[in-house]
Amino acid sequence: MPSMDVCFSPELLPLYNLTGKIAVAVDVLRATSSMVTALSHGITHIAPVSELDSCLAYRDLGYLVAAERDGIKAEGFDLGNSPFHYLEEDRTGRMLAITTTNGTQAIRLSRAADEVLVGAFLNVGAVAEYVRKAGKDVIVVCAGWKGLFNLEDTLFAGALAERLEGDFTLNHDATLAAYHLYKAAKADKLGFLSKSSHVQRLERLHILKDIEFCLQEDTYTVVPVLKGEFLVPAE
Amino acid sequence: MPSMDVCFSPELLPLYNLTGKIAVAVDVLRATSSMVTALSHGITHIAPVSELDSCLAYRDLGYLVAAERDGIKAEGFDLGNSPFHYLEEDRTGRMLAITTTNGTQAIRLSRAADEVLVGAFLNVGAVAEYVRKAGKDVIVVCAGWKGLFNLEDTLFAGALAERLEGDFTLNHDATLAAYHLYKAAKADKLGFLSKSSHVQRLERLHILKDIEFCLQEDTYTVVPVLKGEFLVPAE
Repeated sequence: MPSMDVCFSPELLPLYNLTGKIAVAVDVLRATSSMVTALSHGITHIAPVSELDSCLAYRDLGYLVAAERDGIKAEGFDLGNSPFHYLEEDRTGRMLAITTTNGTQAIRLSRAADEVLVGAFLNVGAVAEYVRKAGKDVIVVCAGWKGLFNLEDTLFAGALAERLEGDFTLNHDATLAAYHLYKAAKADKLGFLSKSSHVQRLERLHILKDIEFCLQEDTYTVVPVLKGEFLVPAE
Repeated sequence: MPSMDVCFSPELLPLYNLTGKIAVAVDVLRATSSMVTALSHGITHIAPVSELDSCLAYRDLGYLVAAERDGIKAEGFDLGNSPFHYLEEDRTGRMLAITTTNGTQAIRLSRAADEVLVGAFLNVGAVAEYVRKAGKDVIVVCAGWKGLFNLEDTLFAGALAERLEGDFTLNHDATLAAYHLYKAAKADKLGFLSKSSHVQRLERLHILKDIEFCLQEDTYTVVPVLKGEFLVPAE
């Protein structure tokens, strides 16, 4: 039976062997939720970029450019980090380059895996289905917050563990922790998270609507998968 | 109000600012539980040492030397890592040098803090009382397992958070996670932990008796505190 593991911070990723595994990069608030939303609403592919400068350079190639630093849209960019950017305006057929504080780093560091997927509550069921079919070991790579553990990405890992229960072994300590935390939070994820100083900080940025959106499960069926430099919908 | 934070792995400790804080180093299975037991049963002070060689060198100074690697007593040492070493034989007035896979490293790395304490379930109430009186920010430094998150040290952090509730802010994500996991595990910690492949591995080493002992709360009132190179009972 394949196993599911969880890495709570990109800083810990060097301790994991990703060879032969599927990595699921997650930054629920809000990078990977926005990516899933973008690919579900007509964006053809996404370049996840680490640096502001290299992200901005994609504009000359015809890309929409999106950037956030510390929760706020970075100066000179078309878009910030809200999933509503892709809902409220038609972006069909557009290409997107995006850089965020934590999310794009998690994707980049996951490249040692056989495949890199992007996960969010919005597509958790589709991600579960994809990795179940693949039958390989899976590791959730939490973006965390500035290298630290965060609750929302952990809850995503727990939601994925619940979906995979019975078909994957869940006996790594981090996976068990995520699983139990999700069980405790499931009935009211927003209430559970709202005690977190990190989430309170996001709420002060007036993105409560975004947070509520990002905590919805199974809104989309797209599974973004990394092909070369780009995230594209899995076939 | 002072705050309580949790660092899930020594690998993440460089991300934390320890200045002005009390660090509580914890390696529940079994290093810090053994240290607490030793100081409660007549050991005068403990030298926590990182390397086997430098630990063995203390023998010439009249110390008992204890070492464990990967859960088993290291060759040439007087003692391994079981708290029963200090219960089953009279060690009154002896000095102890100890090195373990993860625990002594957590202590060493915590030195940037104002004070370093050693915590375990066995003395969790006494640790809570000590830090409450000190009124400083506290950070639990989990030894983890080979750099990875582990459940048992996290549960200790959760137990401490529960004891400090009302007097300390608990809104860091790692603290909230530990708190909720402890709530879920509290009624049957051993049952909760026995799903963990890491704890299963310890059980295969036939140390179930040790594990049960280490999960007891408030057996001892000693608070080991680092003075220079040595752990001594707090006054």
